[in-house]
Amino acid sequence: MTRQAAGVSLAEIQRPVAAPLSAVPEELARIVAADLPLIQEVNGHLLRMKGKLFRPTLLLLAHEATGALDPRAVSLAAIVELIHLATLVHDDSVDHSALRRGMPTVNSLFSHQVAVIMGDYLYSRAITELVRLEDPEPVRVLARVTNAMTVGEMRQLAAFEALGFDQRQYELLCRSKTASLFAAACEVGALTSAPEQRRAMRRYGDALGMAFQIADDLLDYTAAETVTGKPSGLDLKEHKVTLPLILALPRLGPDDRRAVEALFRDAAPADERVAQVVRLVEQHGGLEDARERAAAFAAEAEAALDALAPSPSRDALRDAIVYAIERRN
Amino acid sequence: MTRQAAGVSLAEIQRPVAAPLSAVPEELARIVAADLPLIQEVNGHLLRMKGKLFRPTLLLLAHEATGALDPRAVSLAAIVELIHLATLVHDDSVDHSALRRGMPTVNSLFSHQVAVIMGDYLYSRAITELVRLEDPEPVRVLARVTNAMTVGEMRQLAAFEALGFDQRQYELLCRSKTASLFAAACEVGALTSAPEQRRAMRRYGDALGMAFQIADDLLDYTAAETVTGKPSGLDLKEHKVTLPLILALPRLGPDDRRAVEALFRDAAPADERVAQVVRLVEQHGGLEDARERAAAFAAEAEAALDALAPSPSRDALRDAIVYAIERRN
Repeated sequence: MTRQAAGVSLAEIQRPVAAPLSAVPEELARIVAADLPLIQEVNGHLLRMKGKLFRPTLLLLAHEATGALDPRAVSLAAIVELIHLATLVHDDSVDHSALRRGMPTVNSLFSHQVAVIMGDYLYSRAITELVRLEDPEPVRVLARVTNAMTVGEMRQLAAFEALGFDQRQYELLCRSKTASLFAAACEVGALTSAPEQRRAMRRYGDALGMAFQIADDLLDYTAAETVTGKPSGLDLKEHKVTLPLILALPRLGPDDRRAVEALFRDAAPADERVAQVVRLVEQHGGLEDARERAAAFAAEAEAALDALAPSPSRDALRDAIVYAIERRN
Repeated sequence: MTRQAAGVSLAEIQRPVAAPLSAVPEELARIVAADLPLIQEVNGHLLRMKGKLFRPTLLLLAHEATGALDPRAVSLAAIVELIHLATLVHDDSVDHSALRRGMPTVNSLFSHQVAVIMGDYLYSRAITELVRLEDPEPVRVLARVTNAMTVGEMRQLAAFEALGFDQRQYELLCRSKTASLFAAACEVGALTSAPEQRRAMRRYGDALGMAFQIADDLLDYTAAETVTGKPSGLDLKEHKVTLPLILALPRLGPDDRRAVEALFRDAAPADERVAQVVRLVEQHGGLEDARERAAAFAAEAEAALDALAPSPSRDALRDAIVYAIERRN
């Protein structure tokens, strides 16, 4: 059941770009290679931990679907994954996370110090490699997006008045921390296509990223630990406010509201307290309305695809929308 | 007495570029500006903490001394300082340092998390700003150097068998963590000059950076806490092996060697134990020989200046060598 959403599997989505996609891990390994044994060790761990390669998949599909014919596509796909990886290494270190993709994080397996410096190493390797391509466009797009992602992370750290966090702020956060890199991946894949196709791919990636992040936050309310590798309600436990709670909150009666406030005052809330708030959010339509918001972004992403000629890659981009909102891990 | 070396003050060195240098802090503030209040707060703290601007000074002097006439010089000087600042923020976080330039570090005043993300923010702002200049050369030079600096930091983290750390490894570390950015600052200042002048500036910056770092490590053995803001022997206390110890170590008799080994086994060595090793290093010529090695790099830096026509800026670059090896803080 892993890596499979109702109806659409990641493997199906990846089929039209299976050949270039299979070259991405090797290209990634080439880019991060170093002489220093400690760096080699961390790299080995990160490459073994390999993720779904969803962002490289989107980049390569956007490339195929727009007929961009860019000889740098595989390198760009590896660079986008590398930027994502650098972000994960720092995020895990900032959050003191112990596991990622079912494997120990760099901060837990090595040290917090190694995680900070390795994140810097990976990111600066990505930039160095981008510069080697001798085209300012991808550097511009990806430098801007990396900066946007750091602003998003700061926004998250600044959101200490958790229950005052509203939908506008939440969506701003999703845009900077997730949708910006999806949009950049799709745009960079289409760099050598016609300007309106490039713009369409950017719009598609942005809307897809928003739907993906909302679906991700929904999973925290709905998924069992065995599927996601994380216990359900973890965000609530860590006092992270996401869309389901934001949408349910104004509909709660005074007693229920107090229950939520109590959870947010509790430094280490017990599982039953978390489970109670999960139930309240569900009962007051928080999950349903968040799903609707994700569906609205999904429709936006789908509309952006109208700018493209029909092709197996365009179909796969459409399937990727279904995958993003229906996946279970 | 602060900011003054025997004979040469930083203000004297900065005189030929006083006008452009005075524009650097404002340019820096413009580059890092953000809407998010938390980022503004951290920026305000970092800008108040302002350092000696030694790297921008070198860049601007290299620019003047080679007659480069580059309208981007002030921006490039601010970007180089910004890269330095981003590195400091992460280094302090990795080292859990509480003070920097006599002020609280970002990790101590805000949090470790804010320090990691703000370092990323500053660095990605530097790259975004570099890309805006629409010239691949400075991006190439500065992306490469940032990567070299992270490799240097990893090298430092990997040097756990401290007493096995030799002169070759030490100099590799100095080159990557300090000399590389000095070399890049000087080279970037001379980008629009003749190729041999650009190369000479790079060589000058590299040798100056090596001399500067060795002098810095010597200060840890010689300076009183009132001058440097750090207690003497702090590196030893933290089990950091630098050139004076590396050079003295092979000359120690078995008893003295055992005293050093005992310090490195001691997780929190007492002040008298540290003071004893400082004395041993001095008695066995470690300080003298490290000074000689710094002087050799200083001579290399001076020789590189022969490629330039005489000018007040060339004189200032020569004075900067004296400043680097004789400064007391």
